[in-house]
Amino acid sequence: MKALRFLNDELALQSGPLPPVAEGEARIRVQLAGICATDLEILKGYMEFTGTLGHEFVGVVEECESLPEMVGKRIVGEINAGCGYCDYCRSGLDRHCPERTVLGIQGRDGAFAEFLSLPATNLHVVPDKVDNRAAVFTEPLAAAFEIVEQVHLKPGSTVLVIGDGRLAQLIVRVLSRVGCRVEVIGMSEKKLRLMKGYIAKAYLGSPPPGTKYPTVVDASGSPKGWETAISAVQPRGTIVLKSTYEESVDFNPSPLVIDEVTLVGSRCGPIAPALSALTDGLDPTQLIDGEFELKEWEEAFALARNQESLKVLFKIE
Amino acid sequence: MKALRFLNDELALQSGPLPPVAEGEARIRVQLAGICATDLEILKGYMEFTGTLGHEFVGVVEECESLPEMVGKRIVGEINAGCGYCDYCRSGLDRHCPERTVLGIQGRDGAFAEFLSLPATNLHVVPDKVDNRAAVFTEPLAAAFEIVEQVHLKPGSTVLVIGDGRLAQLIVRVLSRVGCRVEVIGMSEKKLRLMKGYIAKAYLGSPPPGTKYPTVVDASGSPKGWETAISAVQPRGTIVLKSTYEESVDFNPSPLVIDEVTLVGSRCGPIAPALSALTDGLDPTQLIDGEFELKEWEEAFALARNQESLKVLFKIE
Repeated sequence: MKALRFLNDELALQSGPLPPVAEGEARIRVQLAGICATDLEILKGYMEFTGTLGHEFVGVVEECESLPEMVGKRIVGEINAGCGYCDYCRSGLDRHCPERTVLGIQGRDGAFAEFLSLPATNLHVVPDKVDNRAAVFTEPLAAAFEIVEQVHLKPGSTVLVIGDGRLAQLIVRVLSRVGCRVEVIGMSEKKLRLMKGYIAKAYLGSPPPGTKYPTVVDASGSPKGWETAISAVQPRGTIVLKSTYEESVDFNPSPLVIDEVTLVGSRCGPIAPALSALTDGLDPTQLIDGEFELKEWEEAFALARNQESLKVLFKIE
Repeated sequence: MKALRFLNDELALQSGPLPPVAEGEARIRVQLAGICATDLEILKGYMEFTGTLGHEFVGVVEECESLPEMVGKRIVGEINAGCGYCDYCRSGLDRHCPERTVLGIQGRDGAFAEFLSLPATNLHVVPDKVDNRAAVFTEPLAAAFEIVEQVHLKPGSTVLVIGDGRLAQLIVRVLSRVGCRVEVIGMSEKKLRLMKGYIAKAYLGSPPPGTKYPTVVDASGSPKGWETAISAVQPRGTIVLKSTYEESVDFNPSPLVIDEVTLVGSRCGPIAPALSALTDGLDPTQLIDGEFELKEWEEAFALARNQESLKVLFKIE
């Protein structure tokens, strides 16, 4: 099969064998896959991953011995595959299993390929009402739902979101949906416009000086977001950290202590509420900037890297 | 009156007028006061404070127009004085009032003096059973109770405390009291010995590599504690930050995001449970290393700065 693989610091479309299907796993024919900021970071060396890239996908189950009723079903998948036996796995937190593999990120070939494999228990059937161009957003949308899984945000409370990129776009839609009043700091007028209807206020560049927020979400993807979050949070407030990057930050933790600020690291999230929101009117397809075949991967990645673009997809089937 | 004042980067014992007593405030004759790590940091420039140092004290009310029944009572005090009108003050969080003064730390002369003043509503009567040498620990003990005010630590859960100094000593006593299983990383065999009976394990220098904890409290007072805390916390775990210092730390936040770690800044705490614990058997007096008159301040501070010493007191009355 064809797969877009990252090996020896180079990305290349290669032909090779089908991915192995271990006991309890399913083979999935990928239909549509999305490029995420994490993919771009991996190409810079993040996670030291080698193999087939890609973790946002929708596809059809081709082979599944342990759950044969899944064969032929259109599915999305939880990307973390735990050992199944540790305390994390047994408490439903296999996303944190120390032995886990992660699709296209850690120890498991990913979704920019004709086929991938995942444990059968990781698969979620996509409701008929949700078409592939929406379903491909399930994984990042679940990451947005992780915020409200971890932090109790009361309806009507104000949240400042830092960032206007791929993930920030989904975050404002989720926060608006759960009743928050959302303000956003972004870098692109075009991207901020796409948030219209979900946010109360937009700031280009930086927020009004002196304004403090009870909750701040950093989805900027850059160390500058860390600084902005710390200066914008109010005493006893909460910062949700969504950004991962290669760089370090240099800061004095004392103000966090004095103001008793809480920081919450937040990564992958629950698939079910994401699928449910897609079924119930959340439409992320306006975020799609381009759709490419795998062989057009250079053009696809160039567009994904463009500061003004949002979601770039691979049509694989 | 005599007061130990920090002015123009110099500490000096001075004679001067009594502190002003504003409407709603009380004048307190200080009997005993304790030197805290924060005082030592202030002398290095922390908080840019000038005036009379000291915020740990026990004393007797001399004058109190708004609550005359307090006159003659032996008291300790909440050291943060809020405006009384803002959202923080009205929700019981005057410790975070943006307009607050803080005894001996911010905009209000402190306790290393014959008299101090505080709002009458900040005062807590000391039960007869608690003598002054225990009562003077109320404020730092409240700061230790702040941890369980902010984070739900289930009885039986394991907590790693980084530090064996003044505050860490009180923290292990509180955590043991609420049923936690406490492990400690310290730098001094003598100080670790003083924790005997409250902790399950002690490590000199650093913990066994690879051990991860669901909860870590950094009370080390140094940037090294930050690093240790981040490397010792387990995925989905919580770090409570108690350390304030002048230096910065340099780190990459991505692991906090990936492991969904929560960091909780923690400062001053509730006085009532601290007084209650002192009444109910918590005895901190073994931590006292020396008692001095105000005029012996140079000797007192030299002892407080000694790496092996814990609590140094001023007998003022």
